[in-house]
Amino acid sequence: MRAAPDSVREEERAARGFEEARALVAVELGEVNRVILDRMQSPVALIPQLAQHIVAAGGKRVRPVLTLLSANLCGHRGGRQIGLAAAVEFIHTATLLHDDVVDDSDLRRGRSTANALWGNKAPVLVGDFLFSRAFQLMVADGSLRVLDVLATASAVIAEGEVMQLVTANDTATTERAYLDMIEAKTAALFRAACQVGAIVADRPAEEEQALAAYGESLGVAFQLIDDALDYSAQQALLGKSVGDDFREGKVTLPVLVAFARGDETERAFWRRTLERLEQEPGDLDHARALLERHGAIAATIRRAEEYGAAARRALAPFPASRYRQALLDIVSFCIARAY
Amino acid sequence: MRAAPDSVREEERAARGFEEARALVAVELGEVNRVILDRMQSPVALIPQLAQHIVAAGGKRVRPVLTLLSANLCGHRGGRQIGLAAAVEFIHTATLLHDDVVDDSDLRRGRSTANALWGNKAPVLVGDFLFSRAFQLMVADGSLRVLDVLATASAVIAEGEVMQLVTANDTATTERAYLDMIEAKTAALFRAACQVGAIVADRPAEEEQALAAYGESLGVAFQLIDDALDYSAQQALLGKSVGDDFREGKVTLPVLVAFARGDETERAFWRRTLERLEQEPGDLDHARALLERHGAIAATIRRAEEYGAAARRALAPFPASRYRQALLDIVSFCIARAY
Repeated sequence: MRAAPDSVREEERAARGFEEARALVAVELGEVNRVILDRMQSPVALIPQLAQHIVAAGGKRVRPVLTLLSANLCGHRGGRQIGLAAAVEFIHTATLLHDDVVDDSDLRRGRSTANALWGNKAPVLVGDFLFSRAFQLMVADGSLRVLDVLATASAVIAEGEVMQLVTANDTATTERAYLDMIEAKTAALFRAACQVGAIVADRPAEEEQALAAYGESLGVAFQLIDDALDYSAQQALLGKSVGDDFREGKVTLPVLVAFARGDETERAFWRRTLERLEQEPGDLDHARALLERHGAIAATIRRAEEYGAAARRALAPFPASRYRQALLDIVSFCIARAY
Repeated sequence: MRAAPDSVREEERAARGFEEARALVAVELGEVNRVILDRMQSPVALIPQLAQHIVAAGGKRVRPVLTLLSANLCGHRGGRQIGLAAAVEFIHTATLLHDDVVDDSDLRRGRSTANALWGNKAPVLVGDFLFSRAFQLMVADGSLRVLDVLATASAVIAEGEVMQLVTANDTATTERAYLDMIEAKTAALFRAACQVGAIVADRPAEEEQALAAYGESLGVAFQLIDDALDYSAQQALLGKSVGDDFREGKVTLPVLVAFARGDETERAFWRRTLERLEQEPGDLDHARALLERHGAIAATIRRAEEYGAAARRALAPFPASRYRQALLDIVSFCIARAY
């Protein structure tokens, strides 16, 4: 996907929008980061060393920002959102650590993955540690409802990751199965991150469900764009290896679109490269050419835009406010990454 | 370790003692098993398939039996111990799945390990799923104290597993570091399993701490015997591969004793085989001969007996009852496995 001048400007605007959204909760995010650094400590030195590698690498902290903005949107002023935003990030980090082991990928956020440096063993265990820490943070908060929402999200995430194993290398995966999978592996935590913000503010069920729906649609859009970027991004911008999904035989929406629109020769190509994982030099370029030929990246982005629109509509029950605007801007940011 | 006629009888008596202890809570254990089978279900078929492999393989259910006996000892009659015993077993199962990935061992309870059948990917994710299910069960129970105890235990277990990574392949490990490690990786869950029984019965802190102390000492004794069995057992009885620890370069108490009592040639042998993992045919037999020469297995068992005695003493605050007797019998069983 070549960036046209217009879309470059759109991307810049959207990135600025995310920075502005984050700036709204900058002080709280600083507190979240302090909780994260504090709670990843352990007398076992390897744990903070390894956790530091992935937690401190930072990323955008999209999920904790969602918890903070949601809590503020709902008028919570009590500070409970800090520890819970940290818990959400710990759950996310634990799944990243386990996902890297699983995928054998070698780049994450532009740095070596933990497993490339420490083998498969330590990242699994440090992931377990951070996951336990997440629950300790929730226990300290003391809300069984929050514990319920995040324990359930964690189970659903694991289900989604297993679904991904099952659908990988299978070009017969349906679009519905793919969407179920990303709803589970990615959108469940976005959903929970937002819902928790409403719970701590003790808002009525309607608002809680509105934020949950917003988070879920945003999460699907986010993952769709991620899957598009895996084929279309410039590596330096992506911060991970372009073509990771291809090399691992992951069957994502861009591939499903190109497979459905392709002829028998093309389908044989996808089966060889993704199902049998028989890949030769030049195959990734050929895959990208096929996606381009069939408009598969554009179709994926359109799908993401539909989910983005649903996310925006979900915020309708809330009156205009800078927090609501920030959540709207995050939708634009997530989608504009693709341009 | 050759079994002498006397110790064979002792082993039989002890095994009968455990069966009798389990029989005391047989009805409840049946309910626990039903909860386990019910809660490991998922629309993602691979999850129950894989979980079935390890959960249904059974093992002795030592940890849930401890929760049930502790709750009964404390006079709880409300049924809360069922779901929590299942949660304890799920945490244990999740750590087994992650431990097998980590250790690359190929036998567990006499069957192929999950990772030998499904690769490294699925067991990590199914472990995460069962871990999440454990927290869902605790949330359903609704006690923040129980959640606190088990979330903390889970973090400590992960710390212990990482400590094990760090001490493996290091013959300079001190006995204290080894004991810290098994207290964390094994005894923390035994401790929590027993403590939870007192919490659901709403007993005073003294009784809760007595059961926690019992569980912790029992857990250390249990692991010490496990480590002795890894060199001394007959494979058919052990249900896992004799010599696994040796092949993985784990530095356990039997090795530490033999290393401390050995001469320079022997220490060079341990360094070559356990630190550099340069192992040749006959090395395991030689290792076992060195352990025999220095009485290292006997010393390890004596250590286990000390912890067993501490476990028994910890039960002093409780008046005599069949549940108290059952907990005492379990101590004998755990140690007599070594004979």
